[in-house]
Amino acid sequence: MAKIYIEVIPSAGSAKTTNFVNKLAIIIDVLRATSTMVTALANGCKAIVPVHTPEEALEKRLLLPGTLLGGERQAQRLAGFDFGNSPFDYVPEKVGGKRVIMTTTNGTRAIMACREAAYICMASFLNLQSIVEAVQQKFSENSEMEGLVIICAGTNDRFDLPDTLCAGMLIDALGPECVLNDLGIAARMLYKSNENCLTETVLGTNHGQRLISLGFKEDIIHCTTSNILPIVPILIEDEIIWLTEEMVW
Amino acid sequence: MAKIYIEVIPSAGSAKTTNFVNKLAIIIDVLRATSTMVTALANGCKAIVPVHTPEEALEKRLLLPGTLLGGERQAQRLAGFDFGNSPFDYVPEKVGGKRVIMTTTNGTRAIMACREAAYICMASFLNLQSIVEAVQQKFSENSEMEGLVIICAGTNDRFDLPDTLCAGMLIDALGPECVLNDLGIAARMLYKSNENCLTETVLGTNHGQRLISLGFKEDIIHCTTSNILPIVPILIEDEIIWLTEEMVW
Repeated sequence: MAKIYIEVIPSAGSAKTTNFVNKLAIIIDVLRATSTMVTALANGCKAIVPVHTPEEALEKRLLLPGTLLGGERQAQRLAGFDFGNSPFDYVPEKVGGKRVIMTTTNGTRAIMACREAAYICMASFLNLQSIVEAVQQKFSENSEMEGLVIICAGTNDRFDLPDTLCAGMLIDALGPECVLNDLGIAARMLYKSNENCLTETVLGTNHGQRLISLGFKEDIIHCTTSNILPIVPILIEDEIIWLTEEMVW
Repeated sequence: MAKIYIEVIPSAGSAKTTNFVNKLAIIIDVLRATSTMVTALANGCKAIVPVHTPEEALEKRLLLPGTLLGGERQAQRLAGFDFGNSPFDYVPEKVGGKRVIMTTTNGTRAIMACREAAYICMASFLNLQSIVEAVQQKFSENSEMEGLVIICAGTNDRFDLPDTLCAGMLIDALGPECVLNDLGIAARMLYKSNENCLTETVLGTNHGQRLISLGFKEDIIHCTTSNILPIVPILIEDEIIWLTEEMVW
């Protein structure tokens, strides 16, 4: 395979100054937005509609009757919403066959920030290997692709170690032919020195400690489990859906 | 010693949203501003005056006759300036007993961005151990100190691996009692997995590769040599000077 030029960016805010034209964008928000989206889709959710604000979510529901609302501010469920941002909220009985409008502090903002990209998909540890295969396929079948941008959603526009570790795992799996920016080099090094203790390391991060203090330790354990959900969530026409084999992407 | 709260920030731009009140700020620009400042002071330079722009540097020289001008844009010496940003430019014959007004793309900008800090000093691999001792002394003698902010100057407001490795070396030397943000945790991990190959790793970074292409490989080798200059450069009244034992800081 030809070389893939990869730029890792540390937060949703940094996406503003990034060039996404003719690129594949992958958004990572391990704790917890993209992990939760992957889990929801695996549990039968029909589509996730990312929006910027809670107000926008409430307005959008008026236009899409029967849709559920999910998301958080300060890691907590919003008033009037059906779900918070815990993957365990999105059980099959509740999300099966339904659309969920979702707004989170960092994850959905990162998704909205890279709309200029040619292709957009969502990664987490849960579905990492499926994303690797999707990237390899996209770059082998489309010679117009100019690069891959991995957007770590970050935490309030600051560097977030869990997202960076997941970016590093993706880069490592893509192989040695990748051309990386410094954050990509660092992400791969960080992954390699933590690959046998990912959960433990993530529990010790700032975001990990905060979620533990709020009672979400089980969420972290789930969100740091690798390759259990073979799903590629892609953004198409303002909705995140599960890419199936018969679809044209 | 009591716990030290350490925040590592990735670039001069991020310093804008950082609280520096009652904190010690340490600026790191391995390639090459802070390494060059340390080298210049070791070679007898009386003081370095950091300024934002080349124009400001030229204006300031009119007010300070006999002062030299140093710095870079695009890693190259500026027209009408006495020195570029290479540490090898600042030899004793030229800088001995002189003031140098200096402007660089990232390093001097980072210094100007943390002026609210209670104390400000400049670190590099060259003088790392002296900085460690200065930090330990400051926090043991002053119980009002609320924390340490390590500003990696970065490259055009992006994450820079050489600066982050140096931040990691500083954190590692300060011991296990430090309370770290995620970038601090990552910096220490990155340092630990590269401590025996710092020069090689820095040569492979984006900034390293760029300097090599411009003919500055020897600069990188110098700038990644640890603990050869026992100097603590501090910012006092708009000038960077060598902190000596008889001085009150």
